[in-house]
Amino acid sequence: MDFSIWFLMGAALVFFMQGGFAMVETGFTRAKNAGNIIMKNLMDFCIGTVVFAFLGFSLMMGESALFGLIGKPDWQIFTNFSEWIEVNGSSFVFNLVFCATAATIVSGSMAERTKFSAYCLYSAVISLVVYPIEAGWVWNPGGWLATRGYIDFAGSSAIHMVGGITAFIGAAILGPRIGKYVTDKKTGKKTAKAIPGHSITLGALGCFILWFGWYGFNGAAATNISSLGHIFLTTTLAPGFATVTTMLFTWIKNGKPDVSMSLNGALAGLVAITAPCGYVDAGGSMIIGIVAGFLVVAAVEVIDMKLHVDDPVGAVAVHGVNGVWGALAVGFLGNPNVPDPFGDGTVTTGVAGLFYGGGFGQLWTQFYGVLAIAAWTIVTMTIVFKIIKSVNGLRVTAEEEVMGLDLPEHGLPSSYGGFMMIPEAIGYETGGADASASPVVKVPESAAVKVTNLSTPGAKMTKVTIVTNQNRLAGLQAALESIGITGMTVTNVLGYGMQRGQTEVYRGVKVETKLLPKVQLDIVICKVPTDTLVSTVKAALYTGNVGDGKIFIYDVENVIKVRTGEEGYDALQDD
Amino acid sequence: MDFSIWFLMGAALVFFMQGGFAMVETGFTRAKNAGNIIMKNLMDFCIGTVVFAFLGFSLMMGESALFGLIGKPDWQIFTNFSEWIEVNGSSFVFNLVFCATAATIVSGSMAERTKFSAYCLYSAVISLVVYPIEAGWVWNPGGWLATRGYIDFAGSSAIHMVGGITAFIGAAILGPRIGKYVTDKKTGKKTAKAIPGHSITLGALGCFILWFGWYGFNGAAATNISSLGHIFLTTTLAPGFATVTTMLFTWIKNGKPDVSMSLNGALAGLVAITAPCGYVDAGGSMIIGIVAGFLVVAAVEVIDMKLHVDDPVGAVAVHGVNGVWGALAVGFLGNPNVPDPFGDGTVTTGVAGLFYGGGFGQLWTQFYGVLAIAAWTIVTMTIVFKIIKSVNGLRVTAEEEVMGLDLPEHGLPSSYGGFMMIPEAIGYETGGADASASPVVKVPESAAVKVTNLSTPGAKMTKVTIVTNQNRLAGLQAALESIGITGMTVTNVLGYGMQRGQTEVYRGVKVETKLLPKVQLDIVICKVPTDTLVSTVKAALYTGNVGDGKIFIYDVENVIKVRTGEEGYDALQDD
Amino acid sequence: MDFSIWFLMGAALVFFMQGGFAMVETGFTRAKNAGNIIMKNLMDFCIGTVVFAFLGFSLMMGESALFGLIGKPDWQIFTNFSEWIEVNGSSFVFNLVFCATAATIVSGSMAERTKFSAYCLYSAVISLVVYPIEAGWVWNPGGWLATRGYIDFAGSSAIHMVGGITAFIGAAILGPRIGKYVTDKKTGKKTAKAIPGHSITLGALGCFILWFGWYGFNGAAATNISSLGHIFLTTTLAPGFATVTTMLFTWIKNGKPDVSMSLNGALAGLVAITAPCGYVDAGGSMIIGIVAGFLVVAAVEVIDMKLHVDDPVGAVAVHGVNGVWGALAVGFLGNPNVPDPFGDGTVTTGVAGLFYGGGFGQLWTQFYGVLAIAAWTIVTMTIVFKIIKSVNGLRVTAEEEVMGLDLPEHGLPSSYGGFMMIPEAIGYETGGADASASPVVKVPESAAVKVTNLSTPGAKMTKVTIVTNQNRLAGLQAALESIGITGMTVTNVLGYGMQRGQTEVYRGVKVETKLLPKVQLDIVICKVPTDTLVSTVKAALYTGNVGDGKIFIYDVENVIKVRTGEEGYDALQDD
Repeated sequence: MDFSIWFLMGAALVFFMQGGFAMVETGFTRAKNAGNIIMKNLMDFCIGTVVFAFLGFSLMMGESALFGLIGKPDWQIFTNFSEWIEVNGSSFVFNLVFCATAATIVSGSMAERTKFSAYCLYSAVISLVVYPIEAGWVWNPGGWLATRGYIDFAGSSAIHMVGGITAFIGAAILGPRIGKYVTDKKTGKKTAKAIPGHSITLGALGCFILWFGWYGFNGAAATNISSLGHIFLTTTLAPGFATVTTMLFTWIKNGKPDVSMSLNGALAGLVAITAPCGYVDAGGSMIIGIVAGFLVVAAVEVIDMKLHVDDPVGAVAVHGVNGVWGALAVGFLGNPNVPDPFGDGTVTTGVAGLFYGGGFGQLWTQFYGVLAIAAWTIVTMTIVFKIIKSVNGLRVTAEEEVMGLDLPEHGLPSSYGGFMMIPEAIGYETGGADASASPVVKVPESAAVKVTNLSTPGAKMTKVTIVTNQNRLAGLQAALESIGITGMTVTNVLGYGMQRGQTEVYRGVKVETKLLPKVQLDIVICKVPTDTLVSTVKAALYTGNVGDGKIFIYDVENVIKVRTGEEGYDALQDD
Repeated sequence: MDFSIWFLMGAALVFFMQGGFAMVETGFTRAKNAGNIIMKNLMDFCIGTVVFAFLGFSLMMGESALFGLIGKPDWQIFTNFSEWIEVNGSSFVFNLVFCATAATIVSGSMAERTKFSAYCLYSAVISLVVYPIEAGWVWNPGGWLATRGYIDFAGSSAIHMVGGITAFIGAAILGPRIGKYVTDKKTGKKTAKAIPGHSITLGALGCFILWFGWYGFNGAAATNISSLGHIFLTTTLAPGFATVTTMLFTWIKNGKPDVSMSLNGALAGLVAITAPCGYVDAGGSMIIGIVAGFLVVAAVEVIDMKLHVDDPVGAVAVHGVNGVWGALAVGFLGNPNVPDPFGDGTVTTGVAGLFYGGGFGQLWTQFYGVLAIAAWTIVTMTIVFKIIKSVNGLRVTAEEEVMGLDLPEHGLPSSYGGFMMIPEAIGYETGGADASASPVVKVPESAAVKVTNLSTPGAKMTKVTIVTNQNRLAGLQAALESIGITGMTVTNVLGYGMQRGQTEVYRGVKVETKLLPKVQLDIVICKVPTDTLVSTVKAALYTGNVGDGKIFIYDVENVIKVRTGEEGYDALQDD
Repeated sequence: MDFSIWFLMGAALVFFMQGGFAMVETGFTRAKNAGNIIMKNLMDFCIGTVVFAFLGFSLMMGESALFGLIGKPDWQIFTNFSEWIEVNGSSFVFNLVFCATAATIVSGSMAERTKFSAYCLYSAVISLVVYPIEAGWVWNPGGWLATRGYIDFAGSSAIHMVGGITAFIGAAILGPRIGKYVTDKKTGKKTAKAIPGHSITLGALGCFILWFGWYGFNGAAATNISSLGHIFLTTTLAPGFATVTTMLFTWIKNGKPDVSMSLNGALAGLVAITAPCGYVDAGGSMIIGIVAGFLVVAAVEVIDMKLHVDDPVGAVAVHGVNGVWGALAVGFLGNPNVPDPFGDGTVTTGVAGLFYGGGFGQLWTQFYGVLAIAAWTIVTMTIVFKIIKSVNGLRVTAEEEVMGLDLPEHGLPSSYGGFMMIPEAIGYETGGADASASPVVKVPESAAVKVTNLSTPGAKMTKVTIVTNQNRLAGLQAALESIGITGMTVTNVLGYGMQRGQTEVYRGVKVETKLLPKVQLDIVICKVPTDTLVSTVKAALYTGNVGDGKIFIYDVENVIKVRTGEEGYDALQDD
């Protein structure tokens, strides 16, 4: 009786993890996509609810068919509710929230560039068939893996690994975000650039919510207090040790303890302990955590820097890699003397891993179980994404991506109305002014003539002020650099003008804007080549469309460089 | 024994919803009022606690009197605690958290313009008498609606509708926020403007917290596991289907799926399923959700664009309209064969709605119950707000409203210290430069002389820089537009100067500021009418007070428009 | 059976409070340290987990030794897990989350200036020995205070007071943040400056999370429903009354109801009711709350303005002072007729305080208990911090502190990537331009020659534009003020240039920046002393390093002051 309430309370905690995922994924990505990511997190649960009710749930938990490969679909939820609810009352919501966890993992790795419609389609398919079928293998009493003794108590493999693999496939098929990788023109070497998130604080809050919810995630299915207490213990030790490991590892490796990686470390520990939480002892869960803490750092770097798959939040490393590790860990570290989560509290699991005298038996089962689930996921999800790509399109246009998805996909001018943002085309945000990666700016080759010296000693000094759209900054900067101008001041301004172009609708009401975000560049040069500068700017900014910008020219009386005391021409020389 | 713990756990979840409301209401409004909204959300719970302890609780749950219209007040909580706690131990906190939900709904619709003192008074009254009396009708075993078979399991009507109606009355009596509605001078037509919130992310987090808490809200009073599982099911299906409906509806209607409306959709589904959660089946809860998903969008638009009642967060549409729908839904969709939430798990409710063969009986009861509660709320709350308005004042001054309530009401310079904000008088924030709506700026009619051309070909070019207070921007802009100037650059700057005026206190310590936020406008014009421009600016900005601003005039050597290549005079012409 | 699940659910709620603390502490401090504070909150839990498993837990709850002063350490968790888990299954996690609460309190008072490595060391020691030993006195059945009838049900003293005292010692040894106190050169009087936090909204969310979690904190150990309901009641009344008291008190004292103090008031009420939650009646808990609401305001002001100990979040006042009050309150207000939390629901506590006819007995016990725990904490923690200070160093360098800890300690350029921040050296953030407090700027005395008048009527006007690093602003401003320049415009700009200095690593990838945040000052002066101004600026900014900045000089045609209509020279005069 008791544990039946806890079962539902646990389901509510797992539901709350949706909010945690939303915060982690939003916080670790850029502000211009915040509304879009929120929306994807909300909709994968809601679309999942619809399709799980219509088919997914019975495919997973219905009467086992085809040798345990699938549940028999039925629609008793509509046709015979009073009997259906007696049998499945608590089970539906319980299984739905777990299904939604698998689905929502993917939004992180595909963040900042996926079409919203494509994401809706993906999330319908994973909750309708992909997840229900493989989860049925593991948790339907007649599932083929369940009957063979495969153990994944709360879903390291069935949920996290599936989400993580899907995240990898999705991100790989999509391709990286613009500006994420820069290819050196000479060596041809691809370098990864950091694209920091817009709120480490909300990302951290998300991690705390996830960890809190994980007590429900791992504990909800326990049926006796000995095991539940045991599960709480392992679910605390593993992430605790994983986080300390990640902190120390990044500290030693990079010289400083990395905040966002340590948060990933906590999640990695939680993912890894999910399958074995009711089957390993304290020492085992510490080892699982320590390995997870290393794995997540290594995996993030391999995926990012070797495979060049762009996973903005580390979803593949956290859920995919550690999901595999967690499922295998049962086979390595299972201690047969811990309380059986399905027992009455007096019996132990009897599941012994390789290091606890159990030989290779359980490990082998875990191994082929992981393999089977992974294979299923790889095959189905590759097909799904390929079909979505060709039928609906998977990725937004480069213009939309640079602008941020909030506006073009949802008509939301900003998720942070009133806050002043840094123009993005340069600076931390895209990891440097890589004009070639930015599709909206084209630097004409003709402008790239190297002008050795823009200034002449003793000559008239001139200030050139350029006001243009923020997304032109990278190209302009590259063009200016090509003629030797490297000193300038960039200011965020608002340009006033009549509104043109498309009107956005926010909550049913038109959004009007007369002030558009622009950047202003101030450059002071010495005499002669004002013309060169102006023509370079014109070449770099010209598209023939409204918004190309204006150039203003002013007289300058003097310039003094504080450090050297130099004045005039000399003060303007780079050194 | 069991369910008694769950009862309290559920109450804790409902308490947590206060945090969810705080996030939704803060996130969907502007940053300059964030501290004020937070404070209102905190205080309505705390003031509610005080008055509910002194009187509210016994008015609601005390021995029924006056034919079930009211509970007999008593003060045993003070005079005879050991007996009182035995009887009311868990019930007090349980009922208090629900009461506080009704109260807090209102802070959203009255956000950004209500005096803090007025809000404190309102929240004392609703928790002291208005809510306790009508809630006693529904949930006191001797309440007149309870004894007549009126069913509102968790409060669609008794809580949400009451909050929603009060939200409507409050917002209507207050009037809209400055800049929300703009009246066309020619047609006299009122147009609604979008005033986007400052953090969709926090608003979304609030929704996830609310949904999570709602499992406690709807489930806490269940007394058997069959019903609790059933309630979890309906409480998941309805918001899931509602959100998908809202998303699709806004997508089709406006061309894009609206983020904040979809979040409202989820809440609408939750409100609508609150009354019928233990009485309808899966199909019924889906229908309830789908209808709620439509209703909330339609209601937001009717309230905003037809009734012109300014409800910044959609509280009336979400809680008021869907509260009514939820209570009536029991009468339409009640399935008599679902587990009785008050039974032992073996009996069913026996409550049949119109579509389940129950005829009009239950529907009629629901209908007059809703009517009675609505009438009570309308009458009492109208009186309450009218009295507060005349005795204490309901609305802050226009200056305070434009400035944001954080500073004048709480001495808080900003809830986001360190973040640079966009000057607000124009742009997204107030939905366009509607000077007439902004009471702090007066554009003298004399300045509105239409100057057909400010520039003369071949003439000297001049840059005019104006530095003034941010709240003068709208008026200035209108004045400039009236003399034909539409091109300019606006920059957020900080003006340094001796501090004048009132000193603010933050945590007992004086807040000093030498740098005040200002805006700088840069306008480049061609020769002659520098005088016209200067006199227009002077007329628009002059108040005779410190802070009217300064005008700086500089020479310009040349201007080039990139798109056309035009220089000088031509480059300055609008096209 | 039942309450054993609740016991664990309560532990999960207490875990969630870690997220609440993280939000409160981050929100009430500055954005530039957000990642660092998050990291400290995460790591004190994780490091605590490691050391509590290795030793802390057995020191606290192991077989009592040395007359109840200490638990006998053992390592059965590793050597004999299956027996250990049977006995300690739920108890380990339960005690760990409480231990972590004591530890995490301290991060708030030491925020914004403590070395991360020092914090890791501190948090290892407190969780390894300091907390386990004193908590064992109170909660180990054989603890010397437990056996003497000392009552601290959920830890007002054993957790909050210990955290609060440690917070005080840490903050006092560290010294205040740069800019927090300004000493008047003439009177020698120290004045406290307000340093507002960067997100009152997140701070408030943290408070709601903490309050929510507190139902677990106070309730988890109850073993019968009568007492649990009673605890929920007192845990609601005390903070409710405390918050209303704080609000009214600040309103009366400062003229406005203070938002962040009211949030502190809620926490103060919760801390104060923690010890007596199961032992006082409704009236008692109201009194406890009211006193707490006063105490927290008074204590914040005494600590800040009299003792000049800089506690950014009020941790000492909330946890330290109210922890003492809560523990003593049992001795004053204990009502013997409330349900015994350790009973079966039919027995009462029998604990009578001074005001309930119990005489001085219980009060005396509470008094020496508090004294003993406080003495232990003061002695051990002073030693710990002194050792850390001399061995590892406790405080970051002044440069790192001014820069914010995120970058130098964690390689995180910003926790809010993409948001534009206000240059900090002046303005609200450091409470005014106190150059003397800012160690990175040195104003040469030679520059402080008072120039009585920088302008001459009728003379040529000049605009001087200075672009320099943000952290030089305070010194520059002081130098300018010393020559009589008080009017200027400050703009946040980005300076473009080749990256120099150290490279940061974010998630294993190098962070590149070509645009560095700078400030631009625009000053318009009238003729003669351009030289004076330039030499003053040079003296104030000169360090000989890259980044000292540049000065640009332009001609101005005219200046008009709007308020007076004055032009030219006159418009520039201050008045």
